[in-house]
Amino acid sequence: MAKQRRKFWGWGYEGSGLSSADMQPVEAHWADYFGVDGFTADAPPEAGEITLREPRLAIPASLEKICTTEHYERLAHTYGRSLADQIRAFRRDFTNAPDVVAHPRDEQDVVDLLDWCGGADAAAIPFGGGSGVVGGVEAAIGERYAGAVSIDMLKLDKVLEVDKTSRAARIQAGIYGPALESELRPHGLTLRHFPQSFEFSTLGGWIATRSGGHFATLYTHIDDFVETMRIVTPTGIHDSFRLPGSGAGPSPDRMFIGSEGTLGIITEAWMRLQDRPTERASRTVEFKEYMDGVRAVRAIAQAGLYPANCRLLHAGEVKSAGVGDGSASLLVLGFESADHTLGPWLERALECCADHGGVIPPEATDAADDPRAGAAGRWRDAFIKGCYMREALTARGILRETFETSTTWDRFEDLYDDVTRTTLDVIEDVTGHPGALTCRFTHVYPDGPAPYFTYHGMGDKPRMLDQFHRIKQAASDVLVKHRATITHHHAVGRDHRPWYDQQAPAPFVAALSAAKKALDPKGILNPGVLIDPLP
Amino acid sequence: MAKQRRKFWGWGYEGSGLSSADMQPVEAHWADYFGVDGFTADAPPEAGEITLREPRLAIPASLEKICTTEHYERLAHTYGRSLADQIRAFRRDFTNAPDVVAHPRDEQDVVDLLDWCGGADAAAIPFGGGSGVVGGVEAAIGERYAGAVSIDMLKLDKVLEVDKTSRAARIQAGIYGPALESELRPHGLTLRHFPQSFEFSTLGGWIATRSGGHFATLYTHIDDFVETMRIVTPTGIHDSFRLPGSGAGPSPDRMFIGSEGTLGIITEAWMRLQDRPTERASRTVEFKEYMDGVRAVRAIAQAGLYPANCRLLHAGEVKSAGVGDGSASLLVLGFESADHTLGPWLERALECCADHGGVIPPEATDAADDPRAGAAGRWRDAFIKGCYMREALTARGILRETFETSTTWDRFEDLYDDVTRTTLDVIEDVTGHPGALTCRFTHVYPDGPAPYFTYHGMGDKPRMLDQFHRIKQAASDVLVKHRATITHHHAVGRDHRPWYDQQAPAPFVAALSAAKKALDPKGILNPGVLIDPLP
Repeated sequence: MAKQRRKFWGWGYEGSGLSSADMQPVEAHWADYFGVDGFTADAPPEAGEITLREPRLAIPASLEKICTTEHYERLAHTYGRSLADQIRAFRRDFTNAPDVVAHPRDEQDVVDLLDWCGGADAAAIPFGGGSGVVGGVEAAIGERYAGAVSIDMLKLDKVLEVDKTSRAARIQAGIYGPALESELRPHGLTLRHFPQSFEFSTLGGWIATRSGGHFATLYTHIDDFVETMRIVTPTGIHDSFRLPGSGAGPSPDRMFIGSEGTLGIITEAWMRLQDRPTERASRTVEFKEYMDGVRAVRAIAQAGLYPANCRLLHAGEVKSAGVGDGSASLLVLGFESADHTLGPWLERALECCADHGGVIPPEATDAADDPRAGAAGRWRDAFIKGCYMREALTARGILRETFETSTTWDRFEDLYDDVTRTTLDVIEDVTGHPGALTCRFTHVYPDGPAPYFTYHGMGDKPRMLDQFHRIKQAASDVLVKHRATITHHHAVGRDHRPWYDQQAPAPFVAALSAAKKALDPKGILNPGVLIDPLP
Repeated sequence: MAKQRRKFWGWGYEGSGLSSADMQPVEAHWADYFGVDGFTADAPPEAGEITLREPRLAIPASLEKICTTEHYERLAHTYGRSLADQIRAFRRDFTNAPDVVAHPRDEQDVVDLLDWCGGADAAAIPFGGGSGVVGGVEAAIGERYAGAVSIDMLKLDKVLEVDKTSRAARIQAGIYGPALESELRPHGLTLRHFPQSFEFSTLGGWIATRSGGHFATLYTHIDDFVETMRIVTPTGIHDSFRLPGSGAGPSPDRMFIGSEGTLGIITEAWMRLQDRPTERASRTVEFKEYMDGVRAVRAIAQAGLYPANCRLLHAGEVKSAGVGDGSASLLVLGFESADHTLGPWLERALECCADHGGVIPPEATDAADDPRAGAAGRWRDAFIKGCYMREALTARGILRETFETSTTWDRFEDLYDDVTRTTLDVIEDVTGHPGALTCRFTHVYPDGPAPYFTYHGMGDKPRMLDQFHRIKQAASDVLVKHRATITHHHAVGRDHRPWYDQQAPAPFVAALSAAKKALDPKGILNPGVLIDPLP
């Protein structure tokens, strides 16, 4: 059976995506919203249409087995999946394609590749699932390097060891989400880390980018699930003890978690796992006033109940996701456990909702504890389809992008108002049509929420990239103005650099740059991401 | 009213400590245990008995108001409170007294002090409560420096701002535990970080050493309570955004949390707080077989119940702490909440205990939910008295020390056996008498426990320091042999360096050393702790 091949320009496998029938109601909605007659869908790019520059690097004989300059491979490793990536893909612009794509089979191959890159003055760019949205895998490396090698980790895709007693497993970094979960299932274990990109993102990518996952509270980022890692740096292998907790100096692993390929390449990690949940208790709750919902979520986040799901959808998001009529905001609330029934947990959380005017719609009560039913189920379907939606909208000249942040509760209301006003203003300004902006909380903490914004705007295909950048600039400026983070879980990459540079404390940047210089003295690892290599 | 003055050589204020009457049953116990007639208590040192070398540093006029070379101040800033510190204090050995003690009143004073130290080639050693047990505040700095300045942070002792909505407060680093809690009480808030040193340790010290606190599960270290910090480094001030969560690069604060004064001096932090608990549910549970108790605790730690207290005392520890006859191991289990009653939480945890042979003694049922009653209350009293016990035992030539670690559940049983055998062997070998070793869990995680060991041995006063070092060596070697951490919450300091150097991954040490060089180019900050300054 032929192995399915990933689209080099969009989400998922070749042949997959949203059909014209899928898109018909979406087109109708946006045509009505923007007051236009309709949309023309551009054809997606084909590999044969695109000319790449000649590879600037010569593969040494010793690495021929794991390196290629094949056309499709270079195309498929050019971009992540941001709106800017999609716009350029539809323009057949693959200017920054890597010169060489490598597929290491084991840790030694990674060592050998970094040795070669160091000697050849080539940028080494780790590549997992390529699902990032911040330019983290794009070889936009300037003129300083002789070329770029995209190091694709997908062949390191095994679960190597399972420790049922401590509920942990040693797992290679290049494994995709579904394969990871299916290898753990026979042991009754699960990592339960389900970012939206789950199907086409890897463990190593999650760790390198501090991915945000399934749990809306408590274990929000992958960080807390990392027991220890192995990381290949140009100057040696980092291998820390497996420890449930430690107070021995600054956490060694925390320096690498979120380092986005700038300090080394993660080859494997011992991950903390969960027993597979057997108990679930969930409800959806409606709030006529959005800020009542915000207060209810704050009460739940501060109650020590730790729901697995606690996602507040603003009324606009409820409507655009097709899970309700948009007359109320909706809280998708869920608890899960492999140990105990959850009645008292859910009851108390619902009391917090009732204290702030929350109402349980009758349908949601019917849906009971099946996460795939009711409004929660419809939202889940929209969430999964969302990965394919961007390319379909890009083809039609509709700007659709997301950005996200986190801030403390005391600042949230001002931030929300300012982000909403600023983003809608800039969309109207750059597109000439009113835009749409909706918000949900992806994760919540005792001290604040992580709001996630989705916008739509009427694009003008020839100017669309510039339109995107102007909207990004305005939305990001307002986040930093409010001292909210430029990203809660989308990473920094190259695209968030201007705002990360304003956010990151100068002493920390100096320290991290010096750390990079020590580990990567030639500055070959993912240059331009997070920090600039020291001269 | 005259302000109470801290003992320069032991725990607490001058005049406080255990009386002869307090010590009589303790002496009787250990005389019987070691088979000796009794003990002679040496008199504690008096300031007048001790001669210090002349200060090697001249205080500049601009810093005269905040610097002193006063005899008592130099004595009081010589040591932490480890057994090695106590033994040397009783020997009137204060060789490494700092040359100057500084009491900065604000951040600018800290900046000025570091500027002076940089110019004068003086080591700058941050000092909080001086309760550390790893040589972290001792000016054992070798010959390279012109002298040492102990920078005492106690004048930065205010809660500056409270954000009730986000449950957070901006707090200066030099505040002691009790003052911090009493300033938060009127707001209905609490940090709930209660290390054994609580009364005489500071917020800045807790953060710099990754202190372990009140919560036995989930929020075990201070790390998770830090929202953001301000840190004075020799090259600038680190000031990060207040964020509930972020995925923007490696966590900036995590590089400084646990840096033990080697990268900068923490002046203040925004800390995440709790509502003051109104609900409590607790029990003690007995286990005839220790390893049954271990399995019960593992089940609880993996159940997602998150008890505030979950401390398993080995039978030997039960007896030595005077909370039981030593015929069974004891689990002190407690839940607390400011939000909801805890019946279902406690019930399920007790089922986990029953599944593994746990029995609830009748008395413990009576004690119900008052943490100060019953066996749990007696253990709590012993815990608080423990701070004063070491100096009383040192005066009598009885070796008493603690060490702690953490490891995964799959390795715990082997580790426990090996630590016990090795430590008892070495104590008998170096003292000529059988020693005593007991164990409790201070914190537990889904993937493993943090065992805490206490030993007693019959010391020989003239050789006691060497006896201590030989025991420390053997016990620490066995931890590292099992790839358990050299410290779960006692920090590294100077005393744990030989084993930390084996534990810390070489690339991380290189990265951290380079980071230090960038922030502290002259290497003046707490030299010898954690890492060596780069040449």
